[in-house]
Amino acid sequence: MNLWKNYPEERLLQLRDECRAEYLEIKARGLSLDMSRGKPSPDVLDLSNGLLETLAPYTSEDGTDVRNYGVPTGLPECRRLFSELLGIPAEQIIVGNNASLELMYDFYSRLCLFGTLGGAPWGRQGRVKFLCPSPGYDRHFAISKEFGTEMIAVPMTEDGPDMDAVEALVRDDASVKGIWCVPLYSNPQGVVYSDETVRRLAEMKTKAEDFRIFWDNAYGLHHVFEEHRVANILELAAAAGNADRVYYFFSTSKVTFPGGGVGMAAASPANIAEQQKRISIRTIGSDKLNQLRFVRHFKTADAVRRHMRAIGDLLRPKFEIVLDTLDAELGGTGLATWLRPKGGYFVGIDTAEGCAKAVVALAKEAGATLTGAGATFPGGVDPKDTSIRIAPTYPDADELRAAMRLLCLCIKLVSADKLLDGRD
Amino acid sequence: MNLWKNYPEERLLQLRDECRAEYLEIKARGLSLDMSRGKPSPDVLDLSNGLLETLAPYTSEDGTDVRNYGVPTGLPECRRLFSELLGIPAEQIIVGNNASLELMYDFYSRLCLFGTLGGAPWGRQGRVKFLCPSPGYDRHFAISKEFGTEMIAVPMTEDGPDMDAVEALVRDDASVKGIWCVPLYSNPQGVVYSDETVRRLAEMKTKAEDFRIFWDNAYGLHHVFEEHRVANILELAAAAGNADRVYYFFSTSKVTFPGGGVGMAAASPANIAEQQKRISIRTIGSDKLNQLRFVRHFKTADAVRRHMRAIGDLLRPKFEIVLDTLDAELGGTGLATWLRPKGGYFVGIDTAEGCAKAVVALAKEAGATLTGAGATFPGGVDPKDTSIRIAPTYPDADELRAAMRLLCLCIKLVSADKLLDGRD
Repeated sequence: MNLWKNYPEERLLQLRDECRAEYLEIKARGLSLDMSRGKPSPDVLDLSNGLLETLAPYTSEDGTDVRNYGVPTGLPECRRLFSELLGIPAEQIIVGNNASLELMYDFYSRLCLFGTLGGAPWGRQGRVKFLCPSPGYDRHFAISKEFGTEMIAVPMTEDGPDMDAVEALVRDDASVKGIWCVPLYSNPQGVVYSDETVRRLAEMKTKAEDFRIFWDNAYGLHHVFEEHRVANILELAAAAGNADRVYYFFSTSKVTFPGGGVGMAAASPANIAEQQKRISIRTIGSDKLNQLRFVRHFKTADAVRRHMRAIGDLLRPKFEIVLDTLDAELGGTGLATWLRPKGGYFVGIDTAEGCAKAVVALAKEAGATLTGAGATFPGGVDPKDTSIRIAPTYPDADELRAAMRLLCLCIKLVSADKLLDGRD
Repeated sequence: MNLWKNYPEERLLQLRDECRAEYLEIKARGLSLDMSRGKPSPDVLDLSNGLLETLAPYTSEDGTDVRNYGVPTGLPECRRLFSELLGIPAEQIIVGNNASLELMYDFYSRLCLFGTLGGAPWGRQGRVKFLCPSPGYDRHFAISKEFGTEMIAVPMTEDGPDMDAVEALVRDDASVKGIWCVPLYSNPQGVVYSDETVRRLAEMKTKAEDFRIFWDNAYGLHHVFEEHRVANILELAAAAGNADRVYYFFSTSKVTFPGGGVGMAAASPANIAEQQKRISIRTIGSDKLNQLRFVRHFKTADAVRRHMRAIGDLLRPKFEIVLDTLDAELGGTGLATWLRPKGGYFVGIDTAEGCAKAVVALAKEAGATLTGAGATFPGGVDPKDTSIRIAPTYPDADELRAAMRLLCLCIKLVSADKLLDGRD
């Protein structure tokens, strides 16, 4: 061919007419070709199928090839399964990668960077404060610390956070921006938030319009004794006109494999629309193969619930060892108090004031590592030095028995010293 | 038992002595029990093994049970495999989840929130600018836009970004904080950065001490014709005393499953130490099962390279259709120019000025969706309106032939109009 710009006008007109005719002919065929995004074709994907041997066919219920790019909010069947398990509309759920902690961090980060629903970024609002029911989950508090948030410890009761304290703190101070909650089988005490607590959290007046409850329902299905269900805070908040207040998190880390399961977040339609938009800048989609693997393995919500009962059966004897040893060794001594969790991962023990750190150190010296004393308080400081967290899920029964006997012994030793000191 | 505080001193002393004796006896046994973190035991994990049928045994080479929490920087064998494939020391690699785009976003986000290596957060340094070699990858530019960074387009040459322009921009302006690079088979033109370009990027003087090169080597193994390898920028930067300048990203999205593979980041030891600390606040660990699945499937770097040659064999005919059609339809016409990429995912075409948008619209009308004109420029605006991106990886050969003929036809039509207009 030749340089078109050197053609005489007549020749150009002729060429254009020929092109136009051919174009109209093609257009009339009604093609649908997409070359807009770089994504591999199925035959290329087939070369890696060995990775997925048991997963075929690789299509989700809506025909999506889950081995390829896309679906930033997660596979429909996975959203629906979570919906059934947790009682949240599927369209209010975003499915992520392997850990809900990452989603919590990202939601928190975006509040600091961008603000929410038209509000100023938290990072531009001066000093920002967050309520930390304590004892609580150290990794929650580490996120607040990382972002420079001032943490305010709120006492825990047997019904959840002390709601009189919470309501007083949020009512008049616009810099109080949110609260960390583990509403079912709280870490570390195993507290179940009462319906009244959940209702008050959903309904309370907050000075900050961009107040957010980080609702980490990590143990939402992790029953050990009786099966509790916490009140539906998304519904309660919406009914109270506070639909946008709640960020709800869950993952299958306590269902299948910790850090190898499927994390999810749920929130009001407005919150979800905002997050979807922001998330689409960060990723083309989470790992859909992992989502499909989860759905294919369990198939139904009932199957997940049966599986959780099997986990409960394995864990019940361990919790019984912990509680029985505490009863036998410390019952009636006045040296410690504890709740009897109905599920979750932990048993929380309170010693007399000023003893926890010494007990943990003494146990460590004899070969038993416990969670660092104070770790369950904001900044790692337990002001009364009473709180000890027991994680009985990993050790086998004999190890656990040995460790619990040792722990009780250490509590007695430290307490005896303390009592004798007091009499000097 | 009874309340200890009511005991007489003598009884307390006796109790303490008994406890002490028992404690010393236990201590002498040299136990090693860990109840510090809540993690499930292997028998609980076994209940979900169906998810992993082909993956057993579930232990990494150092004995870690990959079904459980931990290993925030990734499995050692996975870091080593990436190390061999890319020529980067394993200890300078962090393995993440399913997408390197997420890692890029997170690294960028942390620069804005926290700064790096003692520097102020970018979000507190006023107006911050980023260099965007254009045409480039729209999702890179979308990240810069999301964080409010001012984007400066830098022309692309056949050897990479115009380095005279880059050096002039970074030399005196401390607000120029970084540059996006796809060094091998660049998106969309398929440019291979020359050794000289990489050397200049590694060595150039930047006014900003916290200048960062986001080195997205997405197509690092994705050869279609000849096998190119881009110069090792981490080594060159370190040799030039700029070790901390480079954030290197790669994923297996172009090796196995897009968005279902394994992403990774690499950087200097100081950068990696900083990122590890920050990442540990966000997650207990990425999906190690996915990492292990990748390593078990391929086993060796050579096997990955063989697999990439098989992908190349599937893609070569497609790239040939694109290039042959361009040659046949537009060769010698002066209506368009293009490079002949040796790998990657795209072919970039430049029309005459002011034609690209009209060509894409016309093709769309006839049923062929191309990447939106301008999408490969910062802010979505191609100042000369010449750049068109072809993504030939997905369609089959017949579709591709039809689409390419249509595209060439549209270029001719729009060009003829333009040439005729110019003569009015």
